Amino acid sequence: MKLYGYFRSSAAFRVRIALYLKGLAPDTELVNLQAGDQSSAAYRTINPQGRVPSLEDDGAVLVQSMAIMEYLDEIYPDPPLLPVAAKGRARVRGIANIIACDIHPLNNLAILNYIKAEFGADTDAVNGWYRHWVKQGFDGVEPLLAESPETGTFCHGDAPGLADICLVPQVFNAQRFDCDLSGYPTILRINDACLKLDAVDQALPGNQPEAAGIA
Amino acid sequence: MKLYGYFRSSAAFRVRIALYLKGLAPDTELVNLQAGDQSSAAYRTINPQGRVPSLEDDGAVLVQSMAIMEYLDEIYPDPPLLPVAAKGRARVRGIANIIACDIHPLNNLAILNYIKAEFGADTDAVNGWYRHWVKQGFDGVEPLLAESPETGTFCHGDAPGLADICLVPQVFNAQRFDCDLSGYPTILRINDACLKLDAVDQALPGNQPEAAGIA
Repeated sequence: MKLYGYFRSSAAFRVRIALYLKGLAPDTELVNLQAGDQSSAAYRTINPQGRVPSLEDDGAVLVQSMAIMEYLDEIYPDPPLLPVAAKGRARVRGIANIIACDIHPLNNLAILNYIKAEFGADTDAVNGWYRHWVKQGFDGVEPLLAESPETGTFCHGDAPGLADICLVPQVFNAQRFDCDLSGYPTILRINDACLKLDAVDQALPGNQPEAAGIA
Repeated sequence: MKLYGYFRSSAAFRVRIALYLKGLAPDTELVNLQAGDQSSAAYRTINPQGRVPSLEDDGAVLVQSMAIMEYLDEIYPDPPLLPVAAKGRARVRGIANIIACDIHPLNNLAILNYIKAEFGADTDAVNGWYRHWVKQGFDGVEPLLAESPETGTFCHGDAPGLADICLVPQVFNAQRFDCDLSGYPTILRINDACLKLDAVDQALPGNQPEAAGIA
């Protein structure tokens, strides 16, 4: 099993957490997004979209972090990333997807580069854009967590799962962009609980080997 | 079962296809996105994110189209929206998620309104933005389809599934924005096969009751 990733990619960060929660330690290959490695012809043969992460396993290459994590959960079911009951699974996937579909894709590097280049967005405008979509998404996530009896130490009960895995990198990056998260006490409480997990610590961007060499 | 949707929402369109493929006919409630219904206090109690679709089933409200479709596939497994084998499931979810995470969220109404209001994007700039992300995503999807022996009449084999369900609304909207799709023959071939399905026809935006009253 080989993970193609980059320390600062939220989507690769997610997959690292999932792997480490399951006690897996794949080979890793660095795709340096700042250097443009993701657009090389060689990497496009791995991942035609030119994005990270990709996961090579047993002759197949899998793309898209959410699909990769569902795969990991299917072939390494213990510990599970999703609850057993269909409604619980839908709740966890719903929260995960608010982040994975409606926050993160708007705020990744390719998009920020586009709004700078095409719309002349300066630092304030980029930060405004970033914070707007974090707020729009977290305004949806916070009540789903705060108002549900199914929320526990983590997003769903007392074990970490797919929603927590998406939450941590999003909070991490929101803090990098100085987003005001004071309106999201439940998100912050769960994020704090996640940060105490060895798997999350091991997956943190700063704890990846390439972090030392890249500003 | 009740679906909160809107004829022009790609995400609601997806869920309609999934429901009709499975022979389900839920009650529907219109959330008029042009009129701002999604932001009303009443709808926010259903869906705190203020997005469509939402699915009410048996006392629970589910959000996010991808989570809703996984739920439908779990409780109404026949016909399945995902293949049996884990690698096949990951392939289908990967293709579906390129669309659901990396194309559609960038091009929905809220985002287009933002770039008009905040960046002064005119019609050409909005169209350029829209087409750029369609191209970026479809450039990834086309080779995953064209170069795989697992592609059949549909994205994965000869029965429609989750990837096809995401493909159809994305092609539909790309055509509305006059995107040049000539570089994606496999996408177009599969889209044509999908359009022949009764479930897709029934789910088309123009075939929803509210389409008659809204320009």
